[in-house]
Amino acid sequence: MKIRVLGSAAGGGCPQWNCAYRNCRGVRDGSLRIEARTQECVAVSSDGEAWFLLNASPEIRAQIESFPALHPRGLRHSPIEGILLTNGDLDHTLGLLSLRESHPLAVYSTEAVRRGFVESNVLYRTLQRFPGQVTWRTLPLQGEIELERRGGGSSGLSVEAFAAPGKLPIHLEGLGAAAGAGENVGLRIRELSSGRVLVYLSTVARLTGETLSAAGRADCLFFDGTFWSEDELRELGASEKSAREMAHLPIGGENGSLAALREARLPLRIYIHLNNTNPVLLEDSPERAAVESAGWRIARDGMEIAL
Amino acid sequence: MKIRVLGSAAGGGCPQWNCAYRNCRGVRDGSLRIEARTQECVAVSSDGEAWFLLNASPEIRAQIESFPALHPRGLRHSPIEGILLTNGDLDHTLGLLSLRESHPLAVYSTEAVRRGFVESNVLYRTLQRFPGQVTWRTLPLQGEIELERRGGGSSGLSVEAFAAPGKLPIHLEGLGAAAGAGENVGLRIRELSSGRVLVYLSTVARLTGETLSAAGRADCLFFDGTFWSEDELRELGASEKSAREMAHLPIGGENGSLAALREARLPLRIYIHLNNTNPVLLEDSPERAAVESAGWRIARDGMEIAL
Repeated sequence: MKIRVLGSAAGGGCPQWNCAYRNCRGVRDGSLRIEARTQECVAVSSDGEAWFLLNASPEIRAQIESFPALHPRGLRHSPIEGILLTNGDLDHTLGLLSLRESHPLAVYSTEAVRRGFVESNVLYRTLQRFPGQVTWRTLPLQGEIELERRGGGSSGLSVEAFAAPGKLPIHLEGLGAAAGAGENVGLRIRELSSGRVLVYLSTVARLTGETLSAAGRADCLFFDGTFWSEDELRELGASEKSAREMAHLPIGGENGSLAALREARLPLRIYIHLNNTNPVLLEDSPERAAVESAGWRIARDGMEIAL
Repeated sequence: MKIRVLGSAAGGGCPQWNCAYRNCRGVRDGSLRIEARTQECVAVSSDGEAWFLLNASPEIRAQIESFPALHPRGLRHSPIEGILLTNGDLDHTLGLLSLRESHPLAVYSTEAVRRGFVESNVLYRTLQRFPGQVTWRTLPLQGEIELERRGGGSSGLSVEAFAAPGKLPIHLEGLGAAAGAGENVGLRIRELSSGRVLVYLSTVARLTGETLSAAGRADCLFFDGTFWSEDELRELGASEKSAREMAHLPIGGENGSLAALREARLPLRIYIHLNNTNPVLLEDSPERAAVESAGWRIARDGMEIAL
């Protein structure tokens, strides 16, 4: 399985447009050992021809251009056979509206995520310009389905979605919809020929038996690396909310993911969806050293993995 | 007046994600004399401190980062004092949703454009997270208003909007709303200290007395450069629509803008909102030579003008 990280940052990217905190300043003026990162999006393929995107970031145009395997091979063409959504957050979905040039799309999501994006969203009409412009394929919360090529035929990959603790997207809060299963999922993507498994969990509010079990059986795990600490934004004065209130289990601390996943059998483990405040972004920080010495890597834009 | 082109392309940018026509291929493989371009957005300032954006492209995050004058000077800050919308097309408005990190915004538009963006658009709730997150300031179709700093005080710039023939955004077509005044405007931006005038007309379906008159009194004119010819997309097989059906007066031909504006007294005239199919993008094309010999320039990302 071929994996390419197109974007590795949380919503807002790094630097974030209205932020001059240490990390963002360091990227801008080059004074710190830190790289610029666009918002989370990962491309996956078995054969290197048919590609699937995990999430659709607002920066999808530049991300597609950054990776020649995703360039079109004809006047109107794209090697992108489908887009899988892990939740309805705008940093995961807004990019769909940038793929609007009368091109057929296949989007895999839970029914909850689909409804959250298409209902009461007049902008979505830009993807309804001809019958069949978007084919939604439901990700069931149990059971594996094949990832298809749009023209028919197998891509050589299958996916299983599983509920992961998360929350409604901010723009859907307060509308009276019950938070529930399917609003946030992890993805287990399996290459049919090799049996190799990628588990993708870019938003996890807390570990459950199901998330731990899926993570423990992965050949490669991408995991929520949004925050280092519970009070990261509060200490900066950037938000009133804790990491968990934003549905992100922090990396560090006694109850963080680094400690909780220490025992899992994981050949390849990568933190992604990194917020611009996270000290692991600094290549010479003690937090980065702690993560790397525990066997984790920090995702960066352009990172490639052959699984 | 300081003017910086952040993005110079029409919707889709150049290259466009699903297009392998000559220009897009030429950018990707470097085989042609053509530059990459992001989608249309221009920054304007009198004092170099308070900036206003003309339109909010989907690529606004990268565009802000590309221009140090727009970088924040504090933990949560932005020199962007306001955003002016010329119509409701997604390539002009989608970027608003990328400026959602709990930051107060001032958006100037006609009432028609405001309604088209905020009504029946659940995604807009991300900009309604606290009272006063977005302050809409109505652009009247007659009369000059001052561009204010958000904290109060003058920016040293004023704006006058005027109706320009255009059309409803694609995603609002067929909803029964009457096409009418205010759905597409030109902007006349005046620097109070010098009296210098920028006229901004990035979408013009046809010339009217009002557009000709405004253009003729500009010190600097940005004008609709979407297409070279009426049948540009049809000839490629990329669309059934003509340039005029898409509300863009072509540059070339007997009835194009190059001929129509030949007599106007215009010290500085620039084509912008350039579609990726337009031959003027090729620096050694006959169309580029024709445009330049008539005194026009072709906008490029990063272009700066001191007016």
